[in-house]
Amino acid sequence: MAEVSALAFKWTGDCLLLLDQRKLPHEEVWVSCKTAEEVAKAISDMVTRGAPLIGITAAFGMVLAAQQAKRKGAECDVQGAEGGEAILLKLERAAQILTSARPTAVNLSWAVRRMMEVARKNSHLPPDEFVARFEEEAISIYREDCEANRRIGEYGAELLPQNCRILTHCNTGALAVSDLGTALGVIKIAYRQGKVQFVWVDETRPFLQGSRLTAWELLKEGIPFKIIVDGAAPWLMRKGLVDAVIVGADRIARNGDVANKIGTYMLAVAAKRHGIPFYVAAPTSTLDLSLPSGDHIPIEERDENEVLGWHGVKVAPENAHALNPAFDVTPAELVTAIVTERGVAFPPYDESLERLCEVRGAECEV
Amino acid sequence: MAEVSALAFKWTGDCLLLLDQRKLPHEEVWVSCKTAEEVAKAISDMVTRGAPLIGITAAFGMVLAAQQAKRKGAECDVQGAEGGEAILLKLERAAQILTSARPTAVNLSWAVRRMMEVARKNSHLPPDEFVARFEEEAISIYREDCEANRRIGEYGAELLPQNCRILTHCNTGALAVSDLGTALGVIKIAYRQGKVQFVWVDETRPFLQGSRLTAWELLKEGIPFKIIVDGAAPWLMRKGLVDAVIVGADRIARNGDVANKIGTYMLAVAAKRHGIPFYVAAPTSTLDLSLPSGDHIPIEERDENEVLGWHGVKVAPENAHALNPAFDVTPAELVTAIVTERGVAFPPYDESLERLCEVRGAECEV
Repeated sequence: MAEVSALAFKWTGDCLLLLDQRKLPHEEVWVSCKTAEEVAKAISDMVTRGAPLIGITAAFGMVLAAQQAKRKGAECDVQGAEGGEAILLKLERAAQILTSARPTAVNLSWAVRRMMEVARKNSHLPPDEFVARFEEEAISIYREDCEANRRIGEYGAELLPQNCRILTHCNTGALAVSDLGTALGVIKIAYRQGKVQFVWVDETRPFLQGSRLTAWELLKEGIPFKIIVDGAAPWLMRKGLVDAVIVGADRIARNGDVANKIGTYMLAVAAKRHGIPFYVAAPTSTLDLSLPSGDHIPIEERDENEVLGWHGVKVAPENAHALNPAFDVTPAELVTAIVTERGVAFPPYDESLERLCEVRGAECEV
Repeated sequence: MAEVSALAFKWTGDCLLLLDQRKLPHEEVWVSCKTAEEVAKAISDMVTRGAPLIGITAAFGMVLAAQQAKRKGAECDVQGAEGGEAILLKLERAAQILTSARPTAVNLSWAVRRMMEVARKNSHLPPDEFVARFEEEAISIYREDCEANRRIGEYGAELLPQNCRILTHCNTGALAVSDLGTALGVIKIAYRQGKVQFVWVDETRPFLQGSRLTAWELLKEGIPFKIIVDGAAPWLMRKGLVDAVIVGADRIARNGDVANKIGTYMLAVAAKRHGIPFYVAAPTSTLDLSLPSGDHIPIEERDENEVLGWHGVKVAPENAHALNPAFDVTPAELVTAIVTERGVAFPPYDESLERLCEVRGAECEV
């Protein structure tokens, strides 16, 4: 049993502790998950969030399912299926539960599929060895993401001009990923290089990941920033106060269409109007080259109460309803470049994204 | 002494009661103002809001100042100035305090200027008659606004197609104006005519006038609607769910540039991209033809805490800061038409707005 400790989660070897991001920045509460079902619930309730991080979280959820299957197998062996086959059946069920926790971010299903492949390849192993191998894979997913963050940060920083004022949306930092972050990782590295002068942080309604989480991370890094309401971003662009926009992604289609937090499309439209570059930063695990365009990306609709109130306090009148799409899709034509850990893709994305995926073939969603 | 009773205020003859819009929709609290200073504070604290309504409110604030001046004059006559002149000096001071309560909406300074003109013309009258004439003028401003609302609603409804789904921003209803509302007045009248199928209500951060106030008014009217976060509006346009956008205005320059609640510019940019008409509805008291363009409109920056927290609950971390511009300016090229009580102006606005103002000459800001 290994241990892993990151900003937003801790893996103790038989338990996944998740920093409850709904309570940040004022309370630091950890939610403990001992089963895949508990992990799925934590993902769907937004205890944990961020496309890459929910992938990592789900991978550990799969490990918990394997451990449970092993224990059950030892306790009573009355199942029709035996040994490895019984474990595989249980893991498939866990995979289903985890994958359906949130539909838009592809990293979740990517990580679960990757774990299932390892399971299938190793189902002949004795239970102890199987679980150890399985845990190793989850930790690899985490470690690779850390490394990807570093590279994304470096590639992305190269794109930015000196003394730039960057606008970002949602939270794409260490609370969304494993380490530095994707879009926020770029900002952090560019800041260390002296390239970033100032950051505009969209508050990101309805969950306020910007004003709660990104602000918290930027304060820790000592990077100067101000929070704005989402609707103010185009106005700041018009006033000449934004030099570049950089956001993360929850899923990127083969043609370069990008699903990301609701409000992203608005930023891309406004950036285009003002000739401001619009960058997307994401690991290749966010690419879904099986989808020809963003029209095929499922958009999660969340509970209307996330819009109608705040922290249990109702804002809207009783009997009022809301529509709460959690994501939107930005068409590729508005995206200046997509920064991945394998390099920067420019339009036409059909070609550039596929080329990036060929760099290390099988790891990519082709 | 006359009495006036509207949804958002009551004039008792010597006291102005303002419905505290910060507490809606859950509490109905009335704030009582007995002096111009109290009225100015209520405007600046957003007890009352909405460009036309703060004009009306300020007019009654001027009446309170005149009444106070009259009482002071009766109590002790030791001022250097005498009679009408002394009252005028006091009114000028009140005018200054009221006008500076909020800088962007021109209706405020328009109403105060109109009251000052009446004061100057009537300063020869005995104090009782003077105050009665002054009160009459404030009531006229209110009555004219009611009538303007009705006409704006009718002109605006003509522009809308059958079965349309309208998107609106902020609150422009009876809580912002005197009666039906401006943009919301158009929606109400068009709904009664069977033209409006559905309304999308932007929640309108940071003050949430959409989810608190517009939702409340639409529920009262039985008009079907859903609330969305501001950043979702362009996405709904892209999904083909919006047929027209209609908003109010806080100030309109001679060239047709429109200052309105922050987030409006974003809607206009997105509407343009999607070929959706973008309408502005406002009384001619919102026109400021003395300004050649929107670049000259002062944009109020409000307290950052309106963005950093909610109802006294801090959302962002301690030490985080926000920029809180309360308005933005939408360039005329993005505005399909401006609906006033004197008719609909189309581009080029330099000509059409001036023509509208000529309809009844002196009342307009030329």
